[in-house]
Amino acid sequence: MSQGLLVINAGSSSIKFSVFALPENRHDLPLVCRGLLESIGEETPHFKAFDAAGKVLIEVRPAPPAGRYRKAGADYRRRATDTQPSAADGEVYDHQAALRDLLSWLKEKPDLPDVVAAGHRVVHGGKEFSDPQRLTPEIMSRLATFIPLAPLHQPHNLAGIRALSAVLPDLPQVACFDTAFHFGQPEVARLFALPLIYRQEGVQRYGFHGLSYEYIAGALAEKMGTAATGRTVVAHLGNGASMCAMQDGQSVATTMGFTAVEGLPMGTRSGSLDPGVVLYLLERHGMGVRDLNNLLYKQSGLLGLSGVSNDMRELLASSDPNAKLAVEYFTYRIAREMGSLAAALGGLDALVFTGGIGEHAATVREQVCTRSAWLGIRLDAEANANDSTRIDQAGSRTAVWVLPTNEELIIARHTRTLVLG
Amino acid sequence: MSQGLLVINAGSSSIKFSVFALPENRHDLPLVCRGLLESIGEETPHFKAFDAAGKVLIEVRPAPPAGRYRKAGADYRRRATDTQPSAADGEVYDHQAALRDLLSWLKEKPDLPDVVAAGHRVVHGGKEFSDPQRLTPEIMSRLATFIPLAPLHQPHNLAGIRALSAVLPDLPQVACFDTAFHFGQPEVARLFALPLIYRQEGVQRYGFHGLSYEYIAGALAEKMGTAATGRTVVAHLGNGASMCAMQDGQSVATTMGFTAVEGLPMGTRSGSLDPGVVLYLLERHGMGVRDLNNLLYKQSGLLGLSGVSNDMRELLASSDPNAKLAVEYFTYRIAREMGSLAAALGGLDALVFTGGIGEHAATVREQVCTRSAWLGIRLDAEANANDSTRIDQAGSRTAVWVLPTNEELIIARHTRTLVLG
Repeated sequence: MSQGLLVINAGSSSIKFSVFALPENRHDLPLVCRGLLESIGEETPHFKAFDAAGKVLIEVRPAPPAGRYRKAGADYRRRATDTQPSAADGEVYDHQAALRDLLSWLKEKPDLPDVVAAGHRVVHGGKEFSDPQRLTPEIMSRLATFIPLAPLHQPHNLAGIRALSAVLPDLPQVACFDTAFHFGQPEVARLFALPLIYRQEGVQRYGFHGLSYEYIAGALAEKMGTAATGRTVVAHLGNGASMCAMQDGQSVATTMGFTAVEGLPMGTRSGSLDPGVVLYLLERHGMGVRDLNNLLYKQSGLLGLSGVSNDMRELLASSDPNAKLAVEYFTYRIAREMGSLAAALGGLDALVFTGGIGEHAATVREQVCTRSAWLGIRLDAEANANDSTRIDQAGSRTAVWVLPTNEELIIARHTRTLVLG
Repeated sequence: MSQGLLVINAGSSSIKFSVFALPENRHDLPLVCRGLLESIGEETPHFKAFDAAGKVLIEVRPAPPAGRYRKAGADYRRRATDTQPSAADGEVYDHQAALRDLLSWLKEKPDLPDVVAAGHRVVHGGKEFSDPQRLTPEIMSRLATFIPLAPLHQPHNLAGIRALSAVLPDLPQVACFDTAFHFGQPEVARLFALPLIYRQEGVQRYGFHGLSYEYIAGALAEKMGTAATGRTVVAHLGNGASMCAMQDGQSVATTMGFTAVEGLPMGTRSGSLDPGVVLYLLERHGMGVRDLNNLLYKQSGLLGLSGVSNDMRELLASSDPNAKLAVEYFTYRIAREMGSLAAALGGLDALVFTGGIGEHAATVREQVCTRSAWLGIRLDAEANANDSTRIDQAGSRTAVWVLPTNEELIIARHTRTLVLG
């Protein structure tokens, strides 16, 4: 049977996965299938997988809410025909049960490769890890110490690793960090103006979306050839959004900082905020940490401003003036951050749009480029409307690209290198 | 006797004052004297005044800490020869006592003008006041409602007004707001990406240092003549520091936001900070609002980063590597904000340095301009070393100015206009 690599992105309530084949030539890493397991930790899991062309291979819909799955070894795909389990039997569906089901499905399908190693997206590598790591108990202990730095994500990333170890104890596993790409930034880009004792305990700018930026840096170098040496800003615009300034493919500054809430406004995240606003909310509204987390991560951003939606497609389609305002604010803040990142680079040679919004929202790209004309950007309206790869006019001093990102492929590549050499 | 205007800047523990003469021609407003009353609210007041040339007119040193001043009517300048007052007599020295002493000193000096109106610096005009206001009980009530927006400054500004009213009930008084200059900014420059209900209660970017920016806008127009139409960034760099982007002399964006802690790192203030850092400090360090206020306003910035001093002169003279790092971080952040503000303007024609650091720290200006060479800035090293008014090289695409600010004169002008027409 052919061999393959499993790539896992484990969150609090979902696991995204991809399977890449390892052909004999060891050069390509073709995607075989991808999918997600949703509603982990709840009673109604949802499993969906697609082949490389996007054809649905399996979809199991949530069961009626009255029912509960047994935990270990449950075959929830047969659940709808089961008799109602007793409450004593019932337990919530966790990462381990989900991964067990995923692996058993992969095993059952004769055309899918045999998984020989797994790579995980792990949000935080702290001040320690500038590169992907093959996982050992010691490394896992170190990664657990970064939980206070990313309490909303790191525990779930690690739960995914532990769950996979429990199901397949001998499977080699690799952790790839969203922070690692920014590791070499100059010190001034990483500081906050706080007493240095806080930096010693890890309070500094880390930056995130590093796997996406690493992919784009490589893809851009391929497209541009030797011209990839230069000053580039990459705008990763999805439901999470950030921007990265790269000099010759190396990160020199990025908009996300200590956490993934800083920088650009996002689907539901506030982005940068006067710290005095947080003090005001604490004092005047009596908010606690949970309230603030909920407000700044879940109720703010495009959703908060528009009162309509966190989804850029809905905002662009809406006639609500607050939806229009939210889009304008988003592109204004991108243009402001672009100026700030150009300052970190000492100018700008290329701009890259990626992420769901960056790849597909021509209106957003157009507004950003119009606001950034002063940086020598001249957009080709037709190329932009078509989501073309290159969207600047001939003669534009700054090149403008639209490149789809592929974080999973970067994880698969690192996993191959660390496990198979 | 000649007439004059009193300008007051009342803080929690000090009152700064200036007296301007009102000559017959009603065009000039020459400074007559200025000074400060320190340690208000404590037991050891300190009164110092200078004439327009900087010559000391009076200095009364703090008394030994065992003693206490009586409150109303106390002539603390004779205190050192008093018998020790009893504890029952003793009360802390407040705004009213300080202003009573100031006015009695002004009256005693035959060469000082008779005060016919007073203008006050008031930090916050809320969403209501785009212009200076002649004070009435109704306006005072409105200004009190802005205390939650600026709890560290607004109450003391208003205490200064009330104290002066108590001493001279019939004196016409005017409030000039640090927020007013930024009133006309575009909506996208004023928003945070929070649910709109917070904006309705006043959570938005206001910006500060507006009286300084207003003065500089006028001074620059005088210097440049018709060329004052253009894209200018003004860097007001003092112990508090901010920057303002002006199009044709009108504010279009500024680095301070809801409070005076946002934006650039300052002497002891953090400047912009990932809101996730505040959540971390709340959660991991169990900090409360008071602790956070103390950390972010008093212990951070240049002082926190360097561990040496909040004073730029000391940092520049220090051989401590952290002092050097603090200066580099300060100039790096100024350069990053300059890029962001240039984006708001769509380019840059002129840069103005003002404030204590901006007017006197050639090394800071040099580092900022070197980092900003990409914006067409070419510094004249000798002119910069001499704190000259114009410090760019011939042929620099962007003009660079050093202009001393004069917030008191702006307050005096507005007071004259509103009271005397």
